[in-house]
Amino acid sequence: MAQDFSKPAVTVDVVIMTLRDDDLHVLLIKRDHVPYRGRWAIPGGFVHLNESLEAAARRELKEETGVTDVYLEQLYTFGDPRRDPRGHVISVAYIALVPEPLAVKGGSDAREARWWSIQQLPPLAFDHARIVDYALTRLRYKIEYSAVGFRLLPETFTLSDLQKAYEIILAEPLDKRNFRRRIIEAAVIEPIDEVRSGEGRPARLYRFRPDAVAEVKARRLFP
Amino acid sequence: MAQDFSKPAVTVDVVIMTLRDDDLHVLLIKRDHVPYRGRWAIPGGFVHLNESLEAAARRELKEETGVTDVYLEQLYTFGDPRRDPRGHVISVAYIALVPEPLAVKGGSDAREARWWSIQQLPPLAFDHARIVDYALTRLRYKIEYSAVGFRLLPETFTLSDLQKAYEIILAEPLDKRNFRRRIIEAAVIEPIDEVRSGEGRPARLYRFRPDAVAEVKARRLFP
Repeated sequence: MAQDFSKPAVTVDVVIMTLRDDDLHVLLIKRDHVPYRGRWAIPGGFVHLNESLEAAARRELKEETGVTDVYLEQLYTFGDPRRDPRGHVISVAYIALVPEPLAVKGGSDAREARWWSIQQLPPLAFDHARIVDYALTRLRYKIEYSAVGFRLLPETFTLSDLQKAYEIILAEPLDKRNFRRRIIEAAVIEPIDEVRSGEGRPARLYRFRPDAVAEVKARRLFP
Repeated sequence: MAQDFSKPAVTVDVVIMTLRDDDLHVLLIKRDHVPYRGRWAIPGGFVHLNESLEAAARRELKEETGVTDVYLEQLYTFGDPRRDPRGHVISVAYIALVPEPLAVKGGSDAREARWWSIQQLPPLAFDHARIVDYALTRLRYKIEYSAVGFRLLPETFTLSDLQKAYEIILAEPLDKRNFRRRIIEAAVIEPIDEVRSGEGRPARLYRFRPDAVAEVKARRLFP
């Protein structure tokens, strides 16, 4: 669809993150059109007339990556008039967290789609590096005081699993005793009546408390 | 400026809040144009080509209310295609907190501007009631764990002043001992070497800790 740039245009762009191979990963697509043809970008595109922002985000995700049924939350709206060489394009950015990497495929406007380690991102189109960076900042901030981590973890996990996930997201080692004390005080997880056996002594399994998860869902913590 | 509604248009709208007469107040303008002519609304208007979102918010505030030099933070972007009878208009909403009611005047597109108690708002244009509601939810949530309250209070205050501000914002009475324990634990305020004398015994004065305030400023807690 040809775009008119005589007034600000609006896109939606989505930062999807997952934990994989001990690292946080972001889903990127390879652009098949100018500008930035051949450059990697977060999935997204123009909002159609009479389409809600979230519907546009879901449509673009599906068209460009095949991904459906993810939980989306608005992150921030980026409106610097110089962020797109075509003209003034305002981007409403969304964030999505998925518990494991989804199968992806390239689609319209995208030759290819794949997961990238957030440590080793390629050069990105537009201001997408800044958008990814902001999504990561928000995620780091939110896991400190909310149950938002439930979107990245399996249903049950050990305290060691959880600490590892936090260490990956925060990109720093955490003291085991402090971590356990803080996470218990935050009251977002609870033990279940099961252990995981393996080497050494069996480890207690935990889950996110249903009420803490409900609160995250209700409050739509992003943003 | 005539608007073209053949693709989504973009406005900015600003919820400015202050504490006044023991109540939270919001600045509203009386609309001078269709749609909703004569109805009260939060200040705002269309984003111009090559204008940043924040610049647009500041321009509209100044044009419609005379208010300048306020600190703005993005709240959320509302994009329901049915929110404006003229067509598909996406609103990027901002929030501003000011320590005391500013003098206001009506301007272009607005016959009148005045502060309204959030308890007794008139019927609002568009989905502005929802936007104000969301701004209040965000404020209530944020004051629980951050120093964002410094934007609503004078530089120094007693613990009773602070408790009263929290009670007004949260719209509920707070237990004095619990409040004091929690606010001290949150480490966002500190005593200064001054007291306020009056009836009864002198009350210690406090201020928000400069580092907590700096953190709020750096993190731009809205959102």
